[in-house]
Amino acid sequence: VPGPATVADCSERELIARVRAHLPPAPPWVLVGIGDDAAVVEPVRNRVEVLTVDASVDGVHFDRALAPPDAIGHRALAVNLSDLAAMGAAPRLALLSMALPPTLPLTDFDAIVGGFAALAGRNRVQVVGGNLTRTPGPLTIDVTVMGTVKRRQALTRSGARPGDDIYVSGTIGGAAAGLRLLQASLGSAQSAIGPTNDDGRLTTETDDRRLTTAFLYPEPRLALGIHLARNKAASACMDLSDGLSDGLEQVAEASGVGMTIDGDALPIEAAARTVFAARGGDAVVEAMRGGDDYELLIAVRPRTQRRLAEAIRRGGVPLTRIGRCTAERGITVRRAHVTSAVELPQGFSHFASVKGSRSEA
Amino acid sequence: VPGPATVADCSERELIARVRAHLPPAPPWVLVGIGDDAAVVEPVRNRVEVLTVDASVDGVHFDRALAPPDAIGHRALAVNLSDLAAMGAAPRLALLSMALPPTLPLTDFDAIVGGFAALAGRNRVQVVGGNLTRTPGPLTIDVTVMGTVKRRQALTRSGARPGDDIYVSGTIGGAAAGLRLLQASLGSAQSAIGPTNDDGRLTTETDDRRLTTAFLYPEPRLALGIHLARNKAASACMDLSDGLSDGLEQVAEASGVGMTIDGDALPIEAAARTVFAARGGDAVVEAMRGGDDYELLIAVRPRTQRRLAEAIRRGGVPLTRIGRCTAERGITVRRAHVTSAVELPQGFSHFASVKGSRSEA
Repeated sequence: VPGPATVADCSERELIARVRAHLPPAPPWVLVGIGDDAAVVEPVRNRVEVLTVDASVDGVHFDRALAPPDAIGHRALAVNLSDLAAMGAAPRLALLSMALPPTLPLTDFDAIVGGFAALAGRNRVQVVGGNLTRTPGPLTIDVTVMGTVKRRQALTRSGARPGDDIYVSGTIGGAAAGLRLLQASLGSAQSAIGPTNDDGRLTTETDDRRLTTAFLYPEPRLALGIHLARNKAASACMDLSDGLSDGLEQVAEASGVGMTIDGDALPIEAAARTVFAARGGDAVVEAMRGGDDYELLIAVRPRTQRRLAEAIRRGGVPLTRIGRCTAERGITVRRAHVTSAVELPQGFSHFASVKGSRSEA
Repeated sequence: VPGPATVADCSERELIARVRAHLPPAPPWVLVGIGDDAAVVEPVRNRVEVLTVDASVDGVHFDRALAPPDAIGHRALAVNLSDLAAMGAAPRLALLSMALPPTLPLTDFDAIVGGFAALAGRNRVQVVGGNLTRTPGPLTIDVTVMGTVKRRQALTRSGARPGDDIYVSGTIGGAAAGLRLLQASLGSAQSAIGPTNDDGRLTTETDDRRLTTAFLYPEPRLALGIHLARNKAASACMDLSDGLSDGLEQVAEASGVGMTIDGDALPIEAAARTVFAARGGDAVVEAMRGGDDYELLIAVRPRTQRRLAEAIRRGGVPLTRIGRCTAERGITVRRAHVTSAVELPQGFSHFASVKGSRSEA
């Protein structure tokens, strides 16, 4: 009996045809699209270009046992679009490079590409090229994206100054809590002594779905980034792919400032607090360490508050003020119910995590 | 006793610093370089942009047992620059994404980046960004490059018409023969009954070095591509990454033409003929199947021969006329010493080769 069809049953050409079936027709600015040695595109007049690449590796950035294939495709693009959002750029095009284990079912391949293409379509990102290859290793998806922004409006990490207010968009901790729930549900599905059951449930099904969705289908804050750039409302910006504590450290270092953070003001997702508490964790520490939120961390000059209000109105997501930049270096997190200032948790780094990472926890 | 340092001994930040140590300072058109969420660059006025991505996977596209680390880095960029050459584009920038097995020695990491950076420097390709991650699988290098070309001068695969002459640059078969030599030397180094020894040598050491260099350090035909585009000398162009037979098929299909190829006219590297013959192979078939030559396949209207001569003069590499495009579809290879027309060997495809590839041979 033949097994289910895998990518190894298809030629590269057939797989490319399957990718193209998910894509809209190329717009006129794509002069040469998929199928030649390279793509040819017209640049946008009077804009500068913003470029970034990010890899998603099975077992490191996602886990095929935890994430449905369309979420894998969605996330591979979302992490890149989040980088564009952090620069204030409007996304334009993507190149999709996939290294495929030969055992990958064709249905999974289609769903991965479908998840990628759906997010691309919603954000008017044109896939102009890519690469498919086999690999003896894990599924690896490398995505390059290009966006554009008006010259002198690109947001960077290095513009914060002492006295600037620090904001974060949306809520944090939801993705980290969602990952815990997914790992726990995998445990209970695989063994009779799994850590969760219906009686022990502390969050509602709706909560659970919101948390796991935050992890599986992050929404890059593109509208917010674009309106922050247009309104010149931010002095510095970066996305929280590696967690709030990492983001604070990076912006502080790039800008040459210190920070005082109000730990009690952090917009921690309410259901995530419950999940962290049920596991004996400190919600503030967990939410600051937890990556994958893809919210924006923003520094704002006090005198540009009015421009900020306009960006928030059009950005489609609330912001919360969580602290202030200081001339004195170092980052302090203040909390009312903790007697001494709490040390900032070590920022999460995908690479340093070789020796004991979140995904191995 | 601690073993040699590996990439797992470094943080991502330290590895990025090691990459930057190989790179020249950013030119003024790089408005934001490595170290922020994304790079920001100015586009070139009055040029369109050419974009491509290619992956190099250990065990598929290269073999760490056969290729020195600097060659791995060189090749990862060269295959992309070859795509730009095929479009007639002048290269401008690259993004380097590496998935690193934790056991990769730091010295190898440095040499890979060094090989990449050396080729980039010689071709004035600025590395504006990238990504580093760990992988539980093989070393995987994804490279995205962007070049530019004047509007309406980009070369494509689809412009060949019946009557056009077909040319190939440089020589072919050298890389395939070089790979055989490397595989044989690995065999003899690993066992006493290896297939080569000094008595059985049929090629000189200089020959051997030229062949293995052709495989390990391919030189993308950038000057040729640029001058073909500037002189509007080519009706179609593509690079031979997957072999001449594959290239002929792709151009014929994209252009809607057939081809008659003079098998006796192919510019097969002389030393490669010796290597193929020593193994009982047909040099024409082997040279047509063999990939990795990174020469250009070019179609030329008969009336543009003078413009072609100018492009060749400045392109730095000779061209050989190997056949002609026909209105009748299908590709025929004619040879004086073969009684019937020989079937074109099946084009090599990196993906289809999952079930028995060249690198597994």
